[in-house]
Amino acid sequence: MSNINDVAKLAKVSISTVSNVLNGRTGQMSEATLERVQRAVEKLGYRPNQAARQLKTGEASMIGLLVPSLGNPSYGVVAREIELAALDRYGYRVVVANTYRDPRHERAFIDDMAAQGVRGVIVISSLSDESHLEEPAARGMVAVSYDSHSRRNARPLLDYVSADNVAGAKQAVEYLIELGHRTIAFLTPASWTFSREEKRDGFAAAIDVAGARGVIIEGEVTPGYADAEMAELGQSLAKKLLRHRAKPTAAIAINDIMAIGLIAGLKSEGLSLPADMSIIGMDGIPLGAFTAPPLTTVKLPVPELARTMVDRIMLRLKKPETTPAEFRFAPSLLVRGSAVPPAKSKRS
Amino acid sequence: MSNINDVAKLAKVSISTVSNVLNGRTGQMSEATLERVQRAVEKLGYRPNQAARQLKTGEASMIGLLVPSLGNPSYGVVAREIELAALDRYGYRVVVANTYRDPRHERAFIDDMAAQGVRGVIVISSLSDESHLEEPAARGMVAVSYDSHSRRNARPLLDYVSADNVAGAKQAVEYLIELGHRTIAFLTPASWTFSREEKRDGFAAAIDVAGARGVIIEGEVTPGYADAEMAELGQSLAKKLLRHRAKPTAAIAINDIMAIGLIAGLKSEGLSLPADMSIIGMDGIPLGAFTAPPLTTVKLPVPELARTMVDRIMLRLKKPETTPAEFRFAPSLLVRGSAVPPAKSKRS
Repeated sequence: MSNINDVAKLAKVSISTVSNVLNGRTGQMSEATLERVQRAVEKLGYRPNQAARQLKTGEASMIGLLVPSLGNPSYGVVAREIELAALDRYGYRVVVANTYRDPRHERAFIDDMAAQGVRGVIVISSLSDESHLEEPAARGMVAVSYDSHSRRNARPLLDYVSADNVAGAKQAVEYLIELGHRTIAFLTPASWTFSREEKRDGFAAAIDVAGARGVIIEGEVTPGYADAEMAELGQSLAKKLLRHRAKPTAAIAINDIMAIGLIAGLKSEGLSLPADMSIIGMDGIPLGAFTAPPLTTVKLPVPELARTMVDRIMLRLKKPETTPAEFRFAPSLLVRGSAVPPAKSKRS
Repeated sequence: MSNINDVAKLAKVSISTVSNVLNGRTGQMSEATLERVQRAVEKLGYRPNQAARQLKTGEASMIGLLVPSLGNPSYGVVAREIELAALDRYGYRVVVANTYRDPRHERAFIDDMAAQGVRGVIVISSLSDESHLEEPAARGMVAVSYDSHSRRNARPLLDYVSADNVAGAKQAVEYLIELGHRTIAFLTPASWTFSREEKRDGFAAAIDVAGARGVIIEGEVTPGYADAEMAELGQSLAKKLLRHRAKPTAAIAINDIMAIGLIAGLKSEGLSLPADMSIIGMDGIPLGAFTAPPLTTVKLPVPELARTMVDRIMLRLKKPETTPAEFRFAPSLLVRGSAVPPAKSKRS
């Protein structure tokens, strides 16, 4: 295997010039020199020893990614886009951990990453308390929090990248109102995260504006944060929804997986869908297209969110003086077939 | 922050003794010394600098994981179990890459891992040609291939851990035969991987033994290897299945995602399920419980597969002289509701 000496010899430059190229310090360098070094690296198939390089720069070409669980397709889809953006745009690899939204797991992972020379992490968590992220951030770990937001009156230490969940829930309500629904349910786990609160707030606000009736139907989610638990909750909420005395004609599920479970639950209660109940999910996971009826949903702009998170990490690694900021992207309604006018207005 | 000197001082041992403990060289050490060092490490919250340690041992506490795509819930579920096993059993983290079954992506990832000091990778790929994995393996990268198997007459360089897909497909056929089906379809992408070939072979063998009629229905899968492509293929094969002149009364889909798409496709063709067509998937992903009817499937023993892959990597890292081997685990039929006796035999 060739080493840095071989590269220097072939390119007719000093070893420190090669090292400068490999570490991106090319500001003072002539185009011709840079090109010569790059061609020599390529020709010799030279791969710098990352461990040695990392010891010198203190950085690994990796970012960390914390997800509640890769078993949940929503997070799988986001993880895929993050890996794609990190590799394609920066040549960085992704270290991943399932944290089940446990702050101890999250903190342990971040500490491990710091010890391994990883300087940037994306945190998909939505825990309301982020104090366990703030200490590593204060010590220089570049962190981006997904689907969460900074607390008011606090100088943020983290970047926040999220979908506008308030707007998303509003879109769902407004669409159902347009279809003629007047009593709409909002189905959610009883435990609140930032994004769930926002969706609920958007729901309540849009219901108010329309002068319609909104009902919140909650249930306990079994811990685990894989996909089955959320689908099971949706399935179990079917009965609660049908027995509610307000008699909702439509339901918004807080995410697509819950909507998939809800559809299964309503069918086993004998309902004919979408005629007997309109359903809207939130997420836009690909499998939502294969329920019967296909799921109408509020689709997150996942590639844009992923790209922004990766870009922010790389920018702040390069320019540590960059102030953390907040980024929000509008979701959009993806109309498939699970929401239709309510039975009554169809009859009229 | 405390350093190795502090630990040595508190434990009243030499720095090299502390280093021996940190690197697992405790064979010659008294219980009392080992315990004293461990207590000192704990008390001081000492975390060895991984980059420095890695340079010395040449190893990062990480393993690499290649998956076709995290967007596909089957791989998400496997990735979750692998990460769990690596962390819980060995304190190792997992670097992940989506490779879309592209050998160039796979090879680039493995080379990157080698450069970063990662010495073990799990490859979920099932490409028939594994020559791009053999060179890194020959140079000391410990590799485990998932759902694949060694070629005959070759001394394996990789471990092979897989489900017994032949047995899995047989179980599906035998169950359908028991229910009274005589003409059974096998739905698959037209491109063959090891595991797909095995499933097809198991299907053909069991059909033969039963003296039944088997038909293979193929379709081109759109590249991408997320979840939607395979579901779309299943959906599009619904028409082919219904128009087949052998008139199959049951269909085995090569995986659950395809089965989910097939169910959607058959419903939009107006079929009533499971009465008009029995369907069996292969995988056992949690979301299969929420189709209507719930999907009967051949369930892979994912936690066992994941644990074995991680254990093999760690064993071979510790004892490089270990000969790579092949491990197979039996899947099991998970009966839900999508396979029932055929319409005719119900009438009789």
